[in-house]
Amino acid sequence: MYRKLAISSIVLNLILFAIIGYAIHLKGGIPYVMDYVSAKVSDNEFDDYYKTRLSIFKESEEKDAIFLGDSLTDYNEWAESFPEVNIGNQGIGDDTTSGVLYRLKETTNLKPSKIFIMIGINDLINGVSRDDILKNYTSIIEEIKKDTPNTEVYIQSLLPTNSDLTYKDVNKEDILWLNDNLRKLASESGYTYIDLYSLFVDGNDELNEKWTIDGIHLNGPGYGVWEEALGRIRGA
Amino acid sequence: MYRKLAISSIVLNLILFAIIGYAIHLKGGIPYVMDYVSAKVSDNEFDDYYKTRLSIFKESEEKDAIFLGDSLTDYNEWAESFPEVNIGNQGIGDDTTSGVLYRLKETTNLKPSKIFIMIGINDLINGVSRDDILKNYTSIIEEIKKDTPNTEVYIQSLLPTNSDLTYKDVNKEDILWLNDNLRKLASESGYTYIDLYSLFVDGNDELNEKWTIDGIHLNGPGYGVWEEALGRIRGA
Repeated sequence: MYRKLAISSIVLNLILFAIIGYAIHLKGGIPYVMDYVSAKVSDNEFDDYYKTRLSIFKESEEKDAIFLGDSLTDYNEWAESFPEVNIGNQGIGDDTTSGVLYRLKETTNLKPSKIFIMIGINDLINGVSRDDILKNYTSIIEEIKKDTPNTEVYIQSLLPTNSDLTYKDVNKEDILWLNDNLRKLASESGYTYIDLYSLFVDGNDELNEKWTIDGIHLNGPGYGVWEEALGRIRGA
Repeated sequence: MYRKLAISSIVLNLILFAIIGYAIHLKGGIPYVMDYVSAKVSDNEFDDYYKTRLSIFKESEEKDAIFLGDSLTDYNEWAESFPEVNIGNQGIGDDTTSGVLYRLKETTNLKPSKIFIMIGINDLINGVSRDDILKNYTSIIEEIKKDTPNTEVYIQSLLPTNSDLTYKDVNKEDILWLNDNLRKLASESGYTYIDLYSLFVDGNDELNEKWTIDGIHLNGPGYGVWEEALGRIRGA
């Protein structure tokens, strides 16, 4: 009886090894595993995309307005949408409040007249607590005020996400709580809060399907709504 | 003896199951597996980033110059670098020659005076043969000539990659062969070939470490070199 059991179990082991081997192969083989292991070891390091984008920002000349954030900022071509303004897109896909804090000098060094910031949704996706997010956000605002006091800062609300379209788990209450506190933070700092949330939300606190493909990012018409909202502020 | 073997083997079974389970958990759990399976089923579909970027391009107004390509085009902020030109960045990370072919109407519809194209490295990474890449490229060029005959097309060479810095396997010979044939294609179509390859290559047919972080993409100074090369063309 043990003989049969041993044989079936060994066969199962071979199958499982094959699955793991194939999965590693799909990912790029042994070099992938090495990269993965070394990435885990130096946990504080940023990924290659972050570093590449940052090295592009370092070459940037002076800007009037900087869009600072994560993929929601990164995906769009702001300088094309507002050709009359000298805009810098400093969005980095997957970035977080601590990522922005780390690279903030590349923004404040340019002494822009305006900074439009949207950051935090990846913190929530990564499981960072809303208190820690708010703490980081407060540090960002303090550092901007200290380093470039004449810059007008526009704190943009977090956007809703759509849980049917994305498997990335975000707590709706956390988004609402953060937006509430970002509004307070803006008011306490003498900066402007921009409520984009209510332009994109449906009746169930979800990102309206009309404005998204993947449940987190905006589609083309969605960016049109965002840009129109910014145009109204500029006009005011 | 079989008893011991059976027990050790079953323990190993459990460990391997745990590894696979943990790997799936890291990736986002069961929804990830479902997405992965459904992605494999509908192989012809483009990913969400492609669809999102395409929906942004669809909102685009007229452009003088369009930069058409993959992540190498996408990562940079071309409109910021050449503020005096009305530029459209139509780069989509991970895109291929067939991806460009599929979305080419969004480029030609805008009737730009110039198109700067760089595409093909992801085809090579994905294992598409160089003959098929050249075939797709030829179709791209034919379609542009048919749909917007007054547009000047700049066919940019593929860049070298650095095999020490990336685990993505690219055959150096294929890059050289393609560049050779892209030069011929440009000349046969009456378009301009731009050799960027030799600006970035080191003595061993590798992307010089000076210009890259991850072995495939350019860093900030690297984009400076590319932009300078384009500036020379414009000046000519």
